[in-house]
Amino acid sequence: MSRPAPADVRTVTCVGAGVIGGGWVAYFLAQGYDVVAWDPAEDAEARLRHLVDAAWPALTELGLAEGASTDRLRVEPDLAAACAVAEFVQESAPEDLELKRTLLADIDAVTPEDVVISSSTSGYGMSEMQVRCAHPERTVVGHPFNPPYLIPLVEVVGGERTAPDVVAWASDFFRHVGKSVITMDREVPGFIANRLQEALWREALHMVAAGEATVEQIDLSITAGPGLRWPIHGPMMTFHLAGGQGGMAHMLDHFGPSLKSPWTRLVAAELTPELRDAVVDGCEQEAAGRTIDELVAERDRGVIAILRALGRA
Amino acid sequence: MSRPAPADVRTVTCVGAGVIGGGWVAYFLAQGYDVVAWDPAEDAEARLRHLVDAAWPALTELGLAEGASTDRLRVEPDLAAACAVAEFVQESAPEDLELKRTLLADIDAVTPEDVVISSSTSGYGMSEMQVRCAHPERTVVGHPFNPPYLIPLVEVVGGERTAPDVVAWASDFFRHVGKSVITMDREVPGFIANRLQEALWREALHMVAAGEATVEQIDLSITAGPGLRWPIHGPMMTFHLAGGQGGMAHMLDHFGPSLKSPWTRLVAAELTPELRDAVVDGCEQEAAGRTIDELVAERDRGVIAILRALGRA
Repeated sequence: MSRPAPADVRTVTCVGAGVIGGGWVAYFLAQGYDVVAWDPAEDAEARLRHLVDAAWPALTELGLAEGASTDRLRVEPDLAAACAVAEFVQESAPEDLELKRTLLADIDAVTPEDVVISSSTSGYGMSEMQVRCAHPERTVVGHPFNPPYLIPLVEVVGGERTAPDVVAWASDFFRHVGKSVITMDREVPGFIANRLQEALWREALHMVAAGEATVEQIDLSITAGPGLRWPIHGPMMTFHLAGGQGGMAHMLDHFGPSLKSPWTRLVAAELTPELRDAVVDGCEQEAAGRTIDELVAERDRGVIAILRALGRA
Repeated sequence: MSRPAPADVRTVTCVGAGVIGGGWVAYFLAQGYDVVAWDPAEDAEARLRHLVDAAWPALTELGLAEGASTDRLRVEPDLAAACAVAEFVQESAPEDLELKRTLLADIDAVTPEDVVISSSTSGYGMSEMQVRCAHPERTVVGHPFNPPYLIPLVEVVGGERTAPDVVAWASDFFRHVGKSVITMDREVPGFIANRLQEALWREALHMVAAGEATVEQIDLSITAGPGLRWPIHGPMMTFHLAGGQGGMAHMLDHFGPSLKSPWTRLVAAELTPELRDAVVDGCEQEAAGRTIDELVAERDRGVIAILRALGRA
């Protein structure tokens, strides 16, 4: 059996049906797929159906694909039977390297050759997970965010032995099912979003440990502060606007010295001319012709819309 | 003249009318105050009126206070005249410690005794800024977020020589004008939100410098990922939900070891039993009786509302 085109996949197998795996099951069902799920837990089916039912109203509100139904979920007690019919496999087992190595090898052994096997791992590289697979070339990381049925991001990255066309196929497939895909060209521990999130989380823990802020103050500082800007433009473009008409260039040239301030426990990157230019050019590219004034108006509309949406306006 | 009650303030003086100072001017005007502005730049008035006009549609959409009008802005070329009528002063000069020390002393010398003088500084402590003031006891940090006319957060913290009742007065005043206020009980460089934001920003710069991610990938990783959750519950409560029914306790007890992972360049805090308990208790307190299921439903409604509000659903 050869690999179907991303748009031709009809049956997805989800291995592991906890919070993340169950979220994937709900999402694929809502997109109109036949979904086969496998999980070793005793009460796996009951918990999974509870999770899918809980997610369904949200998915219905966002719009179901034609023919989408929770009836198209089959929970299969046998891993081989679950994988035999797969045209795509998403693995979402607990974060345990040994477990993932063995499980991926088991999946690999019973999944039709060429079918892509993707892992939800939030931190391991596929290079360290694919070591026991007979066909490591079709294994790839497809890292979602909780809840996978609502948050669009999927980070796709292969391991040393992953075939480049598998990385491309997985990226196309996730895009086809409606995800926002970042395809990374190298393995970085924690990928991108988790590294950023982890830096914030660690600084928050340091502040609590030092008695500098309470849990509630930390959350309010984000929900009433920069957290209202990040969903609109992200952290880099947000600072592009903080530089006024001069944008990121002004920002880095004038506020660069604040990188030396003790404003976090994280030591700053050296702001070399190369890094400065890379960040400035990246912002220009991302702005794609939008002027600072246009971006400011976009941000303002966004913040108002979010405040309204959350009932805070 | 004695200090008015926070609710009795009618005239606010804004010293410095750049992006932040001008944003404050627009906000106070929209809340129905008489605003007097002073800025040493040649074209200060033209730039300020442009900024206020640009912010006014957003402020109008959010709802103006009765009698609010851009006509109630007076730009005063003389600092003493601007401060003589003040019942509250907000200073938003450039981030330069020498400049702030001198300017705050100048403001202090010409502002009626007892009137509170607040600084928008994004990183200096009031202890280091108030050193030349004759009446340092009425100086306080009131740190806003850009744009101050839309983002609710104000972090309030005094310096060594600030009177505790001034910190309380400023917190009450900002709350009265509609802000979300965090009152800090000690000076921490960068306060709270900037420290968290700075940790994320520094990790992002490291990633760009190391060629691990592009500017655009970094922004997309947030706008399509965790950035959609942070405006709803903040980073701590977000992880409270990542722990499933066990909440933050489960999260820390099971994923604590990932703090040792190289997922950011920021070295983690030691997860002592005390820190673990402080975080778990903080989440319980913040949840204020809401169950995990209720919080999950709240998050899902929030994410959908944000996706819709930003035209991405």
